[in-house]
Amino acid sequence: MITEVRRLLDEKKYRALRDLLCDEEPCDVAMLFDKFPKDEIPLMFRILHKDFATEVFVEMDSDLQQALIQAFTDRELSEIINDLFMDDTVDIIEEMPASVVRRILHNTDMERRKKINQLLNYPEDTAGTIMTTEFVRLKAHLTVSDAFKTIKRTGLEKETIYTCYVTDEKRVLLGVVTVKQMLLADEDTLIGDLMVEDPIFCYTDDDKEDVTKAMRKYNFLAMPIVDKENRLVGIVTVDDAMDVLQEEETEDIEIMAAITPTDKPYLKTGVFETWKSRVPWLLILMISATFTSKILTHFESSLAALPILTAFVPLLMGTGGNAGSQSSVSIIRALSLEDIQMRDFAKVLLKEFLVALLCGLSLCIVNFGKMLLFDDVSRSVYGTQQSVLISLSVCITIAITVIIAKVAGSMLPILVKRIGLDPAVMASPFITTIVDVLSLLVYFGICTVLLGRFGIL
Amino acid sequence: MITEVRRLLDEKKYRALRDLLCDEEPCDVAMLFDKFPKDEIPLMFRILHKDFATEVFVEMDSDLQQALIQAFTDRELSEIINDLFMDDTVDIIEEMPASVVRRILHNTDMERRKKINQLLNYPEDTAGTIMTTEFVRLKAHLTVSDAFKTIKRTGLEKETIYTCYVTDEKRVLLGVVTVKQMLLADEDTLIGDLMVEDPIFCYTDDDKEDVTKAMRKYNFLAMPIVDKENRLVGIVTVDDAMDVLQEEETEDIEIMAAITPTDKPYLKTGVFETWKSRVPWLLILMISATFTSKILTHFESSLAALPILTAFVPLLMGTGGNAGSQSSVSIIRALSLEDIQMRDFAKVLLKEFLVALLCGLSLCIVNFGKMLLFDDVSRSVYGTQQSVLISLSVCITIAITVIIAKVAGSMLPILVKRIGLDPAVMASPFITTIVDVLSLLVYFGICTVLLGRFGIL
Repeated sequence: MITEVRRLLDEKKYRALRDLLCDEEPCDVAMLFDKFPKDEIPLMFRILHKDFATEVFVEMDSDLQQALIQAFTDRELSEIINDLFMDDTVDIIEEMPASVVRRILHNTDMERRKKINQLLNYPEDTAGTIMTTEFVRLKAHLTVSDAFKTIKRTGLEKETIYTCYVTDEKRVLLGVVTVKQMLLADEDTLIGDLMVEDPIFCYTDDDKEDVTKAMRKYNFLAMPIVDKENRLVGIVTVDDAMDVLQEEETEDIEIMAAITPTDKPYLKTGVFETWKSRVPWLLILMISATFTSKILTHFESSLAALPILTAFVPLLMGTGGNAGSQSSVSIIRALSLEDIQMRDFAKVLLKEFLVALLCGLSLCIVNFGKMLLFDDVSRSVYGTQQSVLISLSVCITIAITVIIAKVAGSMLPILVKRIGLDPAVMASPFITTIVDVLSLLVYFGICTVLLGRFGIL
Repeated sequence: MITEVRRLLDEKKYRALRDLLCDEEPCDVAMLFDKFPKDEIPLMFRILHKDFATEVFVEMDSDLQQALIQAFTDRELSEIINDLFMDDTVDIIEEMPASVVRRILHNTDMERRKKINQLLNYPEDTAGTIMTTEFVRLKAHLTVSDAFKTIKRTGLEKETIYTCYVTDEKRVLLGVVTVKQMLLADEDTLIGDLMVEDPIFCYTDDDKEDVTKAMRKYNFLAMPIVDKENRLVGIVTVDDAMDVLQEEETEDIEIMAAITPTDKPYLKTGVFETWKSRVPWLLILMISATFTSKILTHFESSLAALPILTAFVPLLMGTGGNAGSQSSVSIIRALSLEDIQMRDFAKVLLKEFLVALLCGLSLCIVNFGKMLLFDDVSRSVYGTQQSVLISLSVCITIAITVIIAKVAGSMLPILVKRIGLDPAVMASPFITTIVDVLSLLVYFGICTVLLGRFGIL
């Protein structure tokens, strides 16, 4: 495909190029453009059919959009901006530098500019920022055939026509009616009789993630968004909901891996930017590892007396970290999917404790067997009784560490959520750091008691 | 709500109860039923309006569905099953024990039974298993008004009517036409002139995740699914696509946390089942920690000579693990979102190397400062020159470890994907284990050279 476009471009066969490109899906063309030098894109863009060009424009990455806007004449810019859906316009504007934004707003007609400014003013991450103001509004006294006429007259500019909204003279949302209902009903049926009353809706300042979750729960193609006076001001469509869902999941995953979330794709994020999103967490976690250093320094004499004890430190810390992250990640995900609620605290605690008990015992037994049968290095140096006692200390520590790790790993995300923070911060890296400290304390405690009693330490 | 339902149930006010329940959304009623004893559910279910009852049934968890099916008479069962959409029927059947499945199939009419069996036979995780066979099929020679008549006649039983599919006499997919196009067009327009030819489609044996990704990419409400002869056999609707998306994300997150994925919600999974999904990975990771033990045992004499070196082992391993998991998780996510492809290998390597260099240097400098200024325990015991050299060894190791961790963390998921496995297995736990070993080797290597040269070790 690329080579074909290259050839047509070089041979200046623009008509053939247009036919080739306009046959593709807009998002594929946008991806294709991304592979060409930026100065060739305005030319390629201009040969596209106008409506198709708008669709391609929406699908482009913001750096490409910016390059194009800068190449546009005022007239071209005005044409394309007035053709865009409102929510797409706002998305694009949010990514542009101030000078480009001024030029866009300057080339937008008065009415649209007002709406854009309104949409830009909703607080970050609210339903208002992702909704579109283009939807089909019907009156209750219309018949189905009137309604179809309204749709026919105005539908082309609406992002979805399949769900229509019935409002009163104050624009307050009264009901919802789908094109499916209308198509299956009699032509003379009144919209007021057909509509579903008291529909589910969201407010402009609801969290956009909650809107998405509600849409998924109720299988909605669009969610009506009302202001504080219950007046219908916009809708969120399912395609935007899917994008929000994906962004939020990526954000969760990044937070869980101790990365400050960015909303740019991996290859579009610069080295310096990536460094900035990663290094603060590494620093915090590194400095918090001071505790483990202090503990090890504190027990330096024990380690010097019985150096073999050092050999099991990574094993204990690793197992504790893994056990804890299994629990914390399960709980973070279950909270995010709303599979568990705050009130399930006790149920979660009991379940994780029992699972931890089983896991702890399994690991304890397997490791005890392994240490006695295979790790005979220690036996030859320390003798059978000592060897058994050392193995026992390690394995009891494993069991206790796993229990601590799983209980802490499951409880901390819930507690963090309770105080209003994102539970995802309590994923592997933080759990690991906490569990590291606790497991070392348990380890040296058990060694001191068990090995001390038999005069080994 | 629950107390109200309880009261109406106890007072046997069934009509009021029906009015109350039928006013809610089906999925809310299903969640409400889950909070009542299983033997009261058939009664509550029977008082619902029939169509509404079917919708509630679809939204229930499979254990509730099973309880209800067992309480149903053959007639009730047959009514409800014949009312369900085909893909929902198959989803339900897949969760039921064999005896229940036999009863369901026995109470399904011949034609549906044949289709159900067909759907059940598609290999796991393919498009065939999530598609529905109920969609609107049109002929190219119809006019728009004919098409609307067809929709009116058959639309009620179709899962979506908004995208209609045009096929030839052999049922081969020719084009796609939306209700929006039809509503905005003239009544006499031929479907063949209106439809978009050569539409995007998937095959029945395509991976369901790929179908979902394509739908998200192209903003489709439904994706046509064809067999090997290009005959249209079903469609995947956007609500099912969103469910698949969510399941796959959960699966990815679980694999990244070293958990064998299960498709049940957290609280519905038993203790034993959760143990089974977690313990194998803990065992594998624990046993692979043997390598770190061996390395520490090997350098036992160095550690005995300079016990302070032990204190930094958790710091190094922790930092390496965190740095590695940042990279591996970023890459796994980018691969899953298709932000990066196999051919971006070199770009990723270069970027991660540069980010690692920056992160490594930052951590190295901060930690060097911290060790010299605050961790003066070591200085008082070892003297200034030794203290500086020890700090230097630790900090150089940190920098090298971060570089190794980030390069390994970014490359391993890509390599694992190349050989056809799920890149998510190369997340934190495995990267950590690998980086643990490497960081210890680097640490002792540097200590031996640097401290050995000055006669400290």
